[in-house]
Amino acid sequence: MLRRVLCTVLFVGALPSLTEVSQGHISVILLGATGDLAKKYLWQGLFQLYIDQVSSGHSFTFHGAALTALEPGQRLMFDVLKKLSCPPDESPNRCAVLKDQFLKLSQYHQLKTAENYTVLNTEIKTLLRQEGLKEAGRIFYFSVPPFAYTEIARHINSSCRPPPGAWLRVVLEKPFGHDLESAQQLAGELTSFFKEEEMYRVDHYLGKQAVAHILPFRDQNRKFLDPIWNRHHVERVEIVLKETVDAKGRTSFYEQYGVIRDVLQNHLTEALMFLIMELPANVNRTEEVLQSKLRAFQSLRGLEKKSVVLGQYQAYASQVQEELQKARDYISATPTFAGVLIHSDSLRWEGVPFLLTSGKALDERVGYVRVLFKNRAYCTQSETLRDAEHSQCKTKQIIFYIGHGALNTPAVLVSRNLFRPIMPEGSWREAVGQSDLHVFGQPLSDYYVYTPVKERDAYSVLISNIYHARKDFFITTENLLASWGFWTPLLDSISQQPLRLYPGGVENQHLLDFEMVSGEVAFTLVEPVELLNPNRLMPSDYKTIQTKFRQSPLVSAWSEELISQLASDIEKTAHRTVAQSGQFHLALSGGSSPVVLFQQLARHHYAFPWKHTHIWLVDERCVPLTDTESNFFSVHNHLLQNVRVPYFNVHPMPVHLNQRLCVEEDRGTELYAKEIMALVANASFDLVLLGVGTDGHTASLFPQSENGLEGAQTVVLTESPVKPHQRMTLSLPLINKARQVFVLVLGKGKHDITTLLSRVGHQPRKWPISGVSPSSGQLVWYVDYEALLG
Amino acid sequence: MLRRVLCTVLFVGALPSLTEVSQGHISVILLGATGDLAKKYLWQGLFQLYIDQVSSGHSFTFHGAALTALEPGQRLMFDVLKKLSCPPDESPNRCAVLKDQFLKLSQYHQLKTAENYTVLNTEIKTLLRQEGLKEAGRIFYFSVPPFAYTEIARHINSSCRPPPGAWLRVVLEKPFGHDLESAQQLAGELTSFFKEEEMYRVDHYLGKQAVAHILPFRDQNRKFLDPIWNRHHVERVEIVLKETVDAKGRTSFYEQYGVIRDVLQNHLTEALMFLIMELPANVNRTEEVLQSKLRAFQSLRGLEKKSVVLGQYQAYASQVQEELQKARDYISATPTFAGVLIHSDSLRWEGVPFLLTSGKALDERVGYVRVLFKNRAYCTQSETLRDAEHSQCKTKQIIFYIGHGALNTPAVLVSRNLFRPIMPEGSWREAVGQSDLHVFGQPLSDYYVYTPVKERDAYSVLISNIYHARKDFFITTENLLASWGFWTPLLDSISQQPLRLYPGGVENQHLLDFEMVSGEVAFTLVEPVELLNPNRLMPSDYKTIQTKFRQSPLVSAWSEELISQLASDIEKTAHRTVAQSGQFHLALSGGSSPVVLFQQLARHHYAFPWKHTHIWLVDERCVPLTDTESNFFSVHNHLLQNVRVPYFNVHPMPVHLNQRLCVEEDRGTELYAKEIMALVANASFDLVLLGVGTDGHTASLFPQSENGLEGAQTVVLTESPVKPHQRMTLSLPLINKARQVFVLVLGKGKHDITTLLSRVGHQPRKWPISGVSPSSGQLVWYVDYEALLG
Repeated sequence: MLRRVLCTVLFVGALPSLTEVSQGHISVILLGATGDLAKKYLWQGLFQLYIDQVSSGHSFTFHGAALTALEPGQRLMFDVLKKLSCPPDESPNRCAVLKDQFLKLSQYHQLKTAENYTVLNTEIKTLLRQEGLKEAGRIFYFSVPPFAYTEIARHINSSCRPPPGAWLRVVLEKPFGHDLESAQQLAGELTSFFKEEEMYRVDHYLGKQAVAHILPFRDQNRKFLDPIWNRHHVERVEIVLKETVDAKGRTSFYEQYGVIRDVLQNHLTEALMFLIMELPANVNRTEEVLQSKLRAFQSLRGLEKKSVVLGQYQAYASQVQEELQKARDYISATPTFAGVLIHSDSLRWEGVPFLLTSGKALDERVGYVRVLFKNRAYCTQSETLRDAEHSQCKTKQIIFYIGHGALNTPAVLVSRNLFRPIMPEGSWREAVGQSDLHVFGQPLSDYYVYTPVKERDAYSVLISNIYHARKDFFITTENLLASWGFWTPLLDSISQQPLRLYPGGVENQHLLDFEMVSGEVAFTLVEPVELLNPNRLMPSDYKTIQTKFRQSPLVSAWSEELISQLASDIEKTAHRTVAQSGQFHLALSGGSSPVVLFQQLARHHYAFPWKHTHIWLVDERCVPLTDTESNFFSVHNHLLQNVRVPYFNVHPMPVHLNQRLCVEEDRGTELYAKEIMALVANASFDLVLLGVGTDGHTASLFPQSENGLEGAQTVVLTESPVKPHQRMTLSLPLINKARQVFVLVLGKGKHDITTLLSRVGHQPRKWPISGVSPSSGQLVWYVDYEALLG
Repeated sequence: MLRRVLCTVLFVGALPSLTEVSQGHISVILLGATGDLAKKYLWQGLFQLYIDQVSSGHSFTFHGAALTALEPGQRLMFDVLKKLSCPPDESPNRCAVLKDQFLKLSQYHQLKTAENYTVLNTEIKTLLRQEGLKEAGRIFYFSVPPFAYTEIARHINSSCRPPPGAWLRVVLEKPFGHDLESAQQLAGELTSFFKEEEMYRVDHYLGKQAVAHILPFRDQNRKFLDPIWNRHHVERVEIVLKETVDAKGRTSFYEQYGVIRDVLQNHLTEALMFLIMELPANVNRTEEVLQSKLRAFQSLRGLEKKSVVLGQYQAYASQVQEELQKARDYISATPTFAGVLIHSDSLRWEGVPFLLTSGKALDERVGYVRVLFKNRAYCTQSETLRDAEHSQCKTKQIIFYIGHGALNTPAVLVSRNLFRPIMPEGSWREAVGQSDLHVFGQPLSDYYVYTPVKERDAYSVLISNIYHARKDFFITTENLLASWGFWTPLLDSISQQPLRLYPGGVENQHLLDFEMVSGEVAFTLVEPVELLNPNRLMPSDYKTIQTKFRQSPLVSAWSEELISQLASDIEKTAHRTVAQSGQFHLALSGGSSPVVLFQQLARHHYAFPWKHTHIWLVDERCVPLTDTESNFFSVHNHLLQNVRVPYFNVHPMPVHLNQRLCVEEDRGTELYAKEIMALVANASFDLVLLGVGTDGHTASLFPQSENGLEGAQTVVLTESPVKPHQRMTLSLPLINKARQVFVLVLGKGKHDITTLLSRVGHQPRKWPISGVSPSSGQLVWYVDYEALLG
């Protein structure tokens, strides 16, 4: 039957002539042809493709496929096709003809076994041979659950590839894994069947007209945006997808994913990338766009627990209990609301807050990307006399309005006091009227407002982009893994995070408003009962304990509180010391414990006298300073690159001299000792920060060490029992000359050594840390509850 | 007569008893007792002092003095005293008694000759001896023009000092010089007569109740302000003094000073200091406050021409012509309006814009200090549903309202969504009513509003502070010089700056609105004719010229444009190179020319790939790196400390090894050569930036140099004809291996060598710069018009 149709179609006068057809034939195979997504969007999108491209020179056939047997499948599918609607901008007559043709060019296949695929392949080939058509390519659209991907991929690869010279495009729908590992695994499997350029991973947000226009807008308005598209001018960016619906009926899916995996990791992150990526010289060069996007991912600062606020609408738990047959007291830790604060460390965006927010059961359905500019103006004329329309003291913003909400249409809004944007005339037009509406704090008349000439469904846009091989509208493997790489650590760390319960709808009131404070976010309203998990005590429930350990002051708390306390104490010491002597000599240890401390100091202690602080290293591994194993590298990475210590005040250990590492005759230890002598009065550091190893080592002074535990040498080379073996370290006698020594001990893993140390005396050969005893300075222990209490 | 009065007063029952008087006697001598300021404020302030302190245990006499002869002087003065008014909070009866006493305690003196002063001294001493009173101290209030200061000071010092054990306080009125030099001179003269603690320089703004309350407010509200009084929370600060009056009748003074010297250098700067200084632990410790204020001055970033916008009201020129008898075409360069953008480089305030604005002939009279906070909240609830009163998405601000304007009273305003401030109950009370008023974009009901319980004139406050020896309400010499040190370079640089003419009053419309862009300010409206000096062409009137110089491309323009172009070209090269090879090796020269370039790169090129840039030095002086003469120090100071080049990518020349400088056997040149070999592919720098000396030297390669002009050595030691003689430099052959070499030549001083170079060939021994000729790279000359055209 198909053959006849194709012939008929090909020779109808109003339709492509033979010469035009010479572009070749495209077969579109829609897997899951009778599923929800196909019914709702995909067939309509394919029909739109046919309408748009019928005169392109390509001929088409459309193959719906599913596991269902031929006859019922056919029936199901044609029920869908009959209901296809004509786009409003198409003449009814032409559309009726085209719809008739589209139906004739569409065919149902049962694709279940390997044989089914072979048969499909043969049918396509036979048809083309009979019609004398060259094959241009095949599109396989996977509208099936991801667990089915691998098998289908294998079948396509082994028996349904087009012949050489024709292309293959496989279109994949999310979810693409639920974390970095699973995404890597899935990607690995697909890569064994398809080349990267053959895969089109759909994020349908990239097909939303307002989102798809972000890059073209930035490109076409370069002359206006170039000076202002940066941290000097942008105050904040909000990327928001609010829903009124909840997860009822979908909890089996939702319970596994939650709002971050469902919406933030993909849709909102992609929109973010379009905003922050450096604009390539040519935005039509797919490869440049993709590369630039990847670089933008690399610029993102890692998320911390406190980068996010999470909520769950109150009815969710009972919906899960019901739909997933859970016990009445089952508590779900799945967030249905999230607000996330993201920072980019690029020079362009450093310090600009990007707020990504999404949730179910909120008060309105709306999606938007809002760029709010700083008010850079001072208006000398008094308020009452200002020209309301054009005053530079009014709010300036650019909004890519995705849809729904007060406007109920995709739109691009630009404050009139910014600039009149250049918009492509054929596809966007200026909207008029509705001036009584207020959006984002201003009357609509304060904006230039543009809406699409033709409102197009996201899937129509994406299917058109698949046809045009615009890979930049899809998620490449690298892109996908970059995104999961960014989100997975957060997802792991918040799996037990308390959620704020919210009633849903307008009842939420201000319950989900949140605020940024020092690079973190927190709900604005402090609620008496906000923990889903009320039995788990939070660090802040405990007061910091102060007592004695080994005859010296002990500060103890949960690690977070402890680090805060330690950072404050270091700052206090620094101020006091700078006030006394004009400078502060701080010697830092490597290892993992201080990393959080470094971050704390860099992010929260803006009054720290860095300009007058000298940074020394307590010990170093014999690796180049740029090696990630280097202690200095860690200090640099987590602290120095974020604060302003003058270059001259930074003193890495000279482990790397004459292109070799820690060779005695290069006399690195002597060099460092001399540097200390020259700069540190009496070689007495103002503050030495130490850690403790499970074997009782401190600095790089290991049990039974031949060097450094005693004697006159102040800087020594030692051997570590673990790699890298060679170390340089301050000696115990030098450490004991310090004016203050803080020892930081964190984590359950240190409980045994902590217990032991609480009992033993001064035995530095056995446990070097026990030899730390400043001769005229002060020693303070900072031990967290886990290390102290196990 | 006076003696009798004092006795009478001292023994009236309601007045101080003898025991209370044991605090001693204070003589107040008001010089310029019949002048405008004395008439308007000072006598009233002294009367207020008497009212307040009559029961303090001190006795008082008040000595008006002027050049006028005794009798007419007496008449003039008592005419003023008779008109003294009673404060509204004082009972009329008590006030009448006190006023009568005050008149009796006041006496006129002609103070003209040295003898007059001796007589005054004798009179005071005699009186006190007769009354059996101990002398507590003397206050000399200088309400006279500054040219008279020195002579009066000499007389007081030589013949009017109180006896040992009693204090001397001399009160001085501005102007205190008109720039740093004159202020230093004046201060030097005064210091030869008075000790620092004896001098009270008045800035009457420090007596304005709202200004005087800034520090107490910060102190009393520490718990609210501590977390938010910093760059993370403060969006901007505006310090504003707008006047409706113009300078008519005062142009002989105004023409010498202008708005910056008249208002910004003193009043607004002092208010700024109260805001930005670190709060001492105890704000009542005068010394701590003063020290902290001085540190705040040190944190201010130097002003540039473009830190300011200037205007002049249109009628000013003709007023000057008339009052100063100038020709009809006389043009005044004196600004009557200024908007200045100030930055502090402290970690607390880094990046926060402080806008100081003042002008005459504006649309309203008002003064305020406004701290606007960032909106840190995201309100999940849609706009229409937000609680208008307390939503965190509403504007947050704290305003110290100095007076006049819409409120017409001193006041402190705090947005209700910030906090309810703690205010001293006795002196400030919460204001009610007037809720229909809008100030700073919000209804007054959105604020907590406090007004003074007693509205006190600034001079009353200051005279009380003189009495209490609260030196922190006055301008110390150090403070004064710090302020002039900050403002003088700007004043010098803008003396020929074009001024925007404005019509005055409400007619100004948006003409004086200005905006911040990349650390600079500019008027928002671009005016076709805004130069008072239309014949002077501005750099931007010229297009950058591109042509050839010594067979290589030449870029030429006025220096500002040239530097911009060079910075852009360097950035472009950097991006291209990083895209190709992942890193960019940039070798920089020392000297003064590149300083502006470094600043341009640091402040305006935020997309520069610093993270991937390696910074090398072309040459170095044999001084420690921390020496201000060091080239590296300059690179660090103007560039590195403001951008994020990783520590590992910074390569200062090793001129300082083994605690000595450029000693051959320390092999610093070898070390640097090896470092280059190890990191720079093929030892071929991506970009070398050079300058040219008037003798034709470049890098530290001087004419006839034995080293570096040829041969295999890549880094060499050379001798400079000028100090410091010893240098380390890249060799000419190494420079010529670079992929790109830019030579920057700026200023008239380079015109001769530029002309010469345009004529001579390759003669590196004579003119080393003529030997720069990259073997396979590109050479570009950046020569400004002054160097090129003379």
